[in-house]
Amino acid sequence: MEQKILLTECSDAVGLIARVTSICFKYNFNIVHQDQFASEDGRFFMRTVLSGIFANEDNFLSEIRQVLPPDAKVRLNGQQKRRLAVLVTKEAHCLGDILMKAYSGALNAEIVMVAGNYPDLGDLARRFDIPFHLVSHEGISREEQERRMCEVIDAANPDYVVLAKYMRILSPKMVAHYPLGKLINIHHSFLPAFIGAKPYQQAFDRGVKIIGATAHFVTDNLDEGPIIEQDVIKVNHRYDAATMAKAGRDVERLVLMRALNKVLDDKVFIHGNKTVVF
Amino acid sequence: MEQKILLTECSDAVGLIARVTSICFKYNFNIVHQDQFASEDGRFFMRTVLSGIFANEDNFLSEIRQVLPPDAKVRLNGQQKRRLAVLVTKEAHCLGDILMKAYSGALNAEIVMVAGNYPDLGDLARRFDIPFHLVSHEGISREEQERRMCEVIDAANPDYVVLAKYMRILSPKMVAHYPLGKLINIHHSFLPAFIGAKPYQQAFDRGVKIIGATAHFVTDNLDEGPIIEQDVIKVNHRYDAATMAKAGRDVERLVLMRALNKVLDDKVFIHGNKTVVF
Amino acid sequence: MEQKILLTECSDAVGLIARVTSICFKYNFNIVHQDQFASEDGRFFMRTVLSGIFANEDNFLSEIRQVLPPDAKVRLNGQQKRRLAVLVTKEAHCLGDILMKAYSGALNAEIVMVAGNYPDLGDLARRFDIPFHLVSHEGISREEQERRMCEVIDAANPDYVVLAKYMRILSPKMVAHYPLGKLINIHHSFLPAFIGAKPYQQAFDRGVKIIGATAHFVTDNLDEGPIIEQDVIKVNHRYDAATMAKAGRDVERLVLMRALNKVLDDKVFIHGNKTVVF
Amino acid sequence: MEQKILLTECSDAVGLIARVTSICFKYNFNIVHQDQFASEDGRFFMRTVLSGIFANEDNFLSEIRQVLPPDAKVRLNGQQKRRLAVLVTKEAHCLGDILMKAYSGALNAEIVMVAGNYPDLGDLARRFDIPFHLVSHEGISREEQERRMCEVIDAANPDYVVLAKYMRILSPKMVAHYPLGKLINIHHSFLPAFIGAKPYQQAFDRGVKIIGATAHFVTDNLDEGPIIEQDVIKVNHRYDAATMAKAGRDVERLVLMRALNKVLDDKVFIHGNKTVVF
Repeated sequence: MEQKILLTECSDAVGLIARVTSICFKYNFNIVHQDQFASEDGRFFMRTVLSGIFANEDNFLSEIRQVLPPDAKVRLNGQQKRRLAVLVTKEAHCLGDILMKAYSGALNAEIVMVAGNYPDLGDLARRFDIPFHLVSHEGISREEQERRMCEVIDAANPDYVVLAKYMRILSPKMVAHYPLGKLINIHHSFLPAFIGAKPYQQAFDRGVKIIGATAHFVTDNLDEGPIIEQDVIKVNHRYDAATMAKAGRDVERLVLMRALNKVLDDKVFIHGNKTVVF
Repeated sequence: MEQKILLTECSDAVGLIARVTSICFKYNFNIVHQDQFASEDGRFFMRTVLSGIFANEDNFLSEIRQVLPPDAKVRLNGQQKRRLAVLVTKEAHCLGDILMKAYSGALNAEIVMVAGNYPDLGDLARRFDIPFHLVSHEGISREEQERRMCEVIDAANPDYVVLAKYMRILSPKMVAHYPLGKLINIHHSFLPAFIGAKPYQQAFDRGVKIIGATAHFVTDNLDEGPIIEQDVIKVNHRYDAATMAKAGRDVERLVLMRALNKVLDDKVFIHGNKTVVF
Repeated sequence: MEQKILLTECSDAVGLIARVTSICFKYNFNIVHQDQFASEDGRFFMRTVLSGIFANEDNFLSEIRQVLPPDAKVRLNGQQKRRLAVLVTKEAHCLGDILMKAYSGALNAEIVMVAGNYPDLGDLARRFDIPFHLVSHEGISREEQERRMCEVIDAANPDYVVLAKYMRILSPKMVAHYPLGKLINIHHSFLPAFIGAKPYQQAFDRGVKIIGATAHFVTDNLDEGPIIEQDVIKVNHRYDAATMAKAGRDVERLVLMRALNKVLDDKVFIHGNKTVVF
Repeated sequence: MEQKILLTECSDAVGLIARVTSICFKYNFNIVHQDQFASEDGRFFMRTVLSGIFANEDNFLSEIRQVLPPDAKVRLNGQQKRRLAVLVTKEAHCLGDILMKAYSGALNAEIVMVAGNYPDLGDLARRFDIPFHLVSHEGISREEQERRMCEVIDAANPDYVVLAKYMRILSPKMVAHYPLGKLINIHHSFLPAFIGAKPYQQAFDRGVKIIGATAHFVTDNLDEGPIIEQDVIKVNHRYDAATMAKAGRDVERLVLMRALNKVLDDKVFIHGNKTVVF
């Protein structure tokens, strides 16, 4: 017996669950777990974990598609490890967590490469036998640096590109180079508070009592992409921008890791500028 | 269009979701929301929020039962307000929250009466026009006090009896007088830590850094019934047993209220000595 | 033996703690608890809980002032209950919590009156024997409504005015009518996210995974005053603006109550546009 | 200008803060931060961060001692990195976090060695250039295994020994080999719930809605030592013992890391079977 995940997305209608699960039943698949959601604006999302013998996947998917509206997107995902490329600058905590989780088998993914615009984290990547690419921005145009970065990313053929405190703003051209949903960023504030540069300094200046982090898919608009996961921690008057940044590292790495796990478990649908996270 | 909630519980089998949702589809019910769970020991639970025209409920339920295993329990609940009886002693915070939520329309229930073994909270109940019954334990046997208490409870015909800091241990006889699932208690510790009397004193003596509260259905075994909801707050060396108790009141009333809301929304199934909470 | 709280604020310098505590020692006061903070920009704040016999308070304070920089502000507060005026519109949850806490003796304050621009909450106030003033905004200018509101507030002579979901923006004139620190507001977002109207609708539109509340002192700039307390709760794709608002009520009332307790315990200093909260 | 931490502990008395801070003032030390606590049973604890020129430390400490009760313990700690020995079995998450934090400079300590009763984590330690000692328990007595373990620990001369999911119960003899406060353990439950073996299985069997972790100093009584830090996470009916264990790893490593940071910052006093954590 094998487990696979059926992902369904289409216009909402009466009977969708019955139609899909009846076909699952016909193929003798047991439904281990199922979540569904119909949005206010009439979109239906469903994630179904199936257990059974997957012999005629094409027939199965074809039958599913026949009972759904024509705009349906249907996928059947196995449990294979996804390939992650990780982009970094100088801060080690997010990359370190990803490497450790992958090393200890707690991440359902393979880190295929790390690339940074500074060499600082090359040593860390190499300690875990992961190739590191230095793609410096110094002395070249932003466009050229991004061209080189995309080159090394694409050569590694990743399923997802994780911006693990990669402290450069991606140009619309680089964003458009990848399909929506492939680039995942961790931003060091509870968006939409403190968009842009130096959020901890902004937080200190405003005198907030909570700071946070936001993992989101990258879109053209800076820090405006669909939010996958957020969390906060408490701070007080004793924190300055530097100690906020230090304290914030734990929530950054946890939020990024939770978002990654959700994505790798096929639990995240993109719905306009939002997400459905089962 | 009306909304009702279909609650299904039976032995697990392949195709249960398909069978039930196909009948829903046949009756042209839209599934607004659905949760299901199959336990390790082979029990299936499903909560389905249906929207549609409920004309032939008996036929509908009969068809559902026909496609399920013989041990199936199936209910179809409307949105009517449940009747709550609240038992108290002297502490006002849980009762106060329940009265306020009911008063402001934020609780899907009607408080039909309050009963206490001390008169202290009678004034509060009456301020909200709720009948209060003093059922003192003084000068009479425990059995006799419980007999009188059951009498005033039963006269009010409640759907649930909420022990909102009712500081008396119920005898097995009184517990057995009600079906499992009807009595809901709030215990002032994160069970199974600090079972029994004076949990805050126990917590202080042990030097814990968190205290909590547990809402659970009442069974024969003291503080051992199925847990519905738990939460904690942080404390430190500056708290003594009294300040812990004071700080704990907020988590007690929140945990009890969350548990009540889950029960009133038909989101709680009892599964042996545990709960399934959708 | 009595307890009083000594509040000290001045330019930072070496030896401030020694100087102040030496005088406390000379007067044979025991220091039950003490907190101090020196800000980055050179301001010193100290809260000292003293236990002893307070016979010569003027001499004591005079000696304290002599050893501090000339810009020092020194106060000695007893434990008397402060007078609270509460402003409301239609939502009951914050007012209800304040009334319940005051009723059960869990709030170190006396509610001297409630005023609303709608009559809806008059019944609730009266159930707790608190005078309610309707100061409608209908048919009169904003200036006139505020003049009347200030009149009923001032007639009650409160120490603090609590805007417990009072859904009107105060004019600079009304704000200036009270000293900074007297007006306390609860805003239904984790500021600085979602400033202004309909924060829950804004939160829904943005697709955030956390919503929150902020208690702050009121200044001229809308939602920009010194923050006293903030907290958040998690939401997901199943929440619309209305269910966010409903879920947010619990965090609103808790955040406001925590802020009030801190203020009533003399634990809050205002420091520019920020607070020091011990 | 240098910073050092003055740690004072003695019987409580009037004037202790004045006496100590007056001597600090005399030596021209600025008090950057100070916390103090007087316990119910009459014990006084104070942590004072001093900034200044430390030329006559012996004289300074001698003067401090002269003004305190004879039972006073006084220490003046510099900022030097402490030496940590880490004991492990097979689970990588706590060790991995410690290694990563030390590697990135986020831990104020040096990992001097790792020792395990299984060889599994040797590879991880070596990737960070930390010596690993295998001290197997197979084929030898518990006493002999502990003798060998103490030998490798003592050879590394650590300030603290961290039991980072070292899944063996220490004998009273091994515990007594080290002073109280030197051995720090992470237990995978929110003590005192689920003392002993397999806490996640116990948690699953009981049907709790929260699981947690506890960092504590090790004493003779299993899982009964002074608690430094605790935290919890929410679980539900979908978790079995294995998924609870997986989810619990994040709270285990965070709780251990927070406890370590508190200890390394000299913020933890032991007070009987409890702690004072500033």
